[in-house]
Amino acid sequence: MYLNPLGIVSNMPDSGAASAAPKEVRSSPLPSMFARYRDGFVSHMKGSVPGYDTSAGHDGSLDGLYHMLSYHLGWSDSSGRPVDGEGSQGKALRPTLCLFACESLGGNWSQARPAASALEMVHNFSLVHDDIQDGDLERRHQPTVWSLWGQSQALVSGNALRSVADQTALELAELGVPTSKALKATQILTNACLEMIQGQCLDLSFERRLDIGPTDYLDMVSRKTGSLISCALQMGALVATDDASPIRFYGEAGQYLGLAFQVRDDVLGIWGDESTTGKAAGNDILRRKKSFPVVYALETCTSAARQRLFEIYNREDLTEQDVADVMMVLEEVGAESYSQRTAEERASLALEQVRKISLETWAFHEFEELVSFLAIRHY
Amino acid sequence: MYLNPLGIVSNMPDSGAASAAPKEVRSSPLPSMFARYRDGFVSHMKGSVPGYDTSAGHDGSLDGLYHMLSYHLGWSDSSGRPVDGEGSQGKALRPTLCLFACESLGGNWSQARPAASALEMVHNFSLVHDDIQDGDLERRHQPTVWSLWGQSQALVSGNALRSVADQTALELAELGVPTSKALKATQILTNACLEMIQGQCLDLSFERRLDIGPTDYLDMVSRKTGSLISCALQMGALVATDDASPIRFYGEAGQYLGLAFQVRDDVLGIWGDESTTGKAAGNDILRRKKSFPVVYALETCTSAARQRLFEIYNREDLTEQDVADVMMVLEEVGAESYSQRTAEERASLALEQVRKISLETWAFHEFEELVSFLAIRHY
Repeated sequence: MYLNPLGIVSNMPDSGAASAAPKEVRSSPLPSMFARYRDGFVSHMKGSVPGYDTSAGHDGSLDGLYHMLSYHLGWSDSSGRPVDGEGSQGKALRPTLCLFACESLGGNWSQARPAASALEMVHNFSLVHDDIQDGDLERRHQPTVWSLWGQSQALVSGNALRSVADQTALELAELGVPTSKALKATQILTNACLEMIQGQCLDLSFERRLDIGPTDYLDMVSRKTGSLISCALQMGALVATDDASPIRFYGEAGQYLGLAFQVRDDVLGIWGDESTTGKAAGNDILRRKKSFPVVYALETCTSAARQRLFEIYNREDLTEQDVADVMMVLEEVGAESYSQRTAEERASLALEQVRKISLETWAFHEFEELVSFLAIRHY
Repeated sequence: MYLNPLGIVSNMPDSGAASAAPKEVRSSPLPSMFARYRDGFVSHMKGSVPGYDTSAGHDGSLDGLYHMLSYHLGWSDSSGRPVDGEGSQGKALRPTLCLFACESLGGNWSQARPAASALEMVHNFSLVHDDIQDGDLERRHQPTVWSLWGQSQALVSGNALRSVADQTALELAELGVPTSKALKATQILTNACLEMIQGQCLDLSFERRLDIGPTDYLDMVSRKTGSLISCALQMGALVATDDASPIRFYGEAGQYLGLAFQVRDDVLGIWGDESTTGKAAGNDILRRKKSFPVVYALETCTSAARQRLFEIYNREDLTEQDVADVMMVLEEVGAESYSQRTAEERASLALEQVRKISLETWAFHEFEELVSFLAIRHY
């Protein structure tokens, strides 16, 4: 048992007992706020992606483009047939946070839907491009866009999704949000998008370097993941209120939440259960991803172990033995529990920021539930 | 001699005398409007691309990113040293049109600089990505970004440039443009950007097809090239006036201008002079580009010739004989003069739209000069 800083009892093992990780937990239900907003923003998104409704029936010149988008968003299969359910649609964390922030401050969350849709599209634009760069063949248990339609088409479809996102964000004014506020929201989204791309750029440059420490890594993550999550909470808050303080506190909280989310993701990328994460255990090691646990190990392990890690991470293809060796070093330095602690500390800091906003009890309780989920989730 | 529909005497040969093309004309000076705005928007752009001023001196984590942008924009060389002059900066057609449209309607063009800068950045974002997709090694007489830094870095730097463009466009409000108008301008730019990407997507899909007619091709071009040029004139006009008519007429003119510009570009891509275009003659043939003259030939040539073209365009690498054969078919159907006529007809239509705006004489004269230049330029 491991009592995290949030006061939540989890089955998180310490480093010496990594094999006792709670692999029996197949899936944890999403916090209730996810279900409350889902239909509202998914229907809005479907209305905003042009050609979605017509992609099945006719042969318009741009159907191919919208088919790729619809496929990536989990709305249709690779042959264009609509998909029932939410199978490969992802958690939709960013739109959920946006609409929650709006409602938590007494706003009409329905008015914030263009922001929520835009956030989910920007996030998915980044995923389509990331998959090209990383050469990843699978995303959410299905083949990636580039692996089905080629790199060029995937590049263009990512770009298109981003433009549709921009168009969608600008619809805020049409739902009664004052013009100056709509402009401000667009500005926040644009800045977050640039920060996210800067983070992606740093991430790429880290791939070729072995001198990255946990601080560099967390700086990169706060851009790549934190900025859009922070933006989500800020945009939602902005629609609800003219008061700058809650917008700022939510913004700060989002940054910490992004770090908690990503570092937990990194833990799952190495020690997660394939049946819930959709990725094989040790997957990030095999892909030579310098995620948080590895970066931590590189800084704290013995010089002999570091030598071995350097040698492995400088090679193109890793053997099973290489992966086992890396896992051994990670275990020696307690990388799993250190990473998990880092995730939960950041989650705590997020909570601290939101405590400064005088939210109603239900809202604070829901945010607490979300924070715990993000830091200790299994998928 | 060839009297085009604009009433301008050019040295354009008819199809039977393609070899008499005016290869002796090494360069034509740009119309005067280009020089008038250049310094104004280039300095604005340099102020908007973050990190430009500091890229030479220190080793910040994002210098690599801004170095790529600065290189692509022609401001520094591949090792980061500032470049004097305008060597590889491109014509800057879109910002010039934007600032001209503003001034021509009595507006303060200095106020429209954020729009102009944003347009040039969006255009350059598309070039960086196009070069990846087309595998092009050179652009404006120098190595392309991806060929120097790799595809992933080029992809990310294109994305960054687009975000900086969005940020820059939003600065209109800071220069005194009313908020609602700034929002409208952002909307026009966003829509144009999506259309441009749709055009790029169609262009990619055409690469695999041989059943594209001149009409399909011009539809694709009106999106890929026309929309951003149309957007440039509209944004400039919007800053100057509240009257919807001139904005609309300029928008229409821009579409035609885009077609004229691209079809002339296609003519230069086959029959242009390397010393002025920076591309070898017949370059587009060698790259199996289905540009306007080829699409026209595919539709109008004999079935035997079509068979030969199909065979050539289905192959990966072309021999000198293949290129000569394609050139022969193009000559047989008079593809050069037909294409040139098409460019000039579209240029005429652009002029017709602008005639509906009651511009001052100097402004109409300058637009006329620009239109002629775009349709008959040699570089």
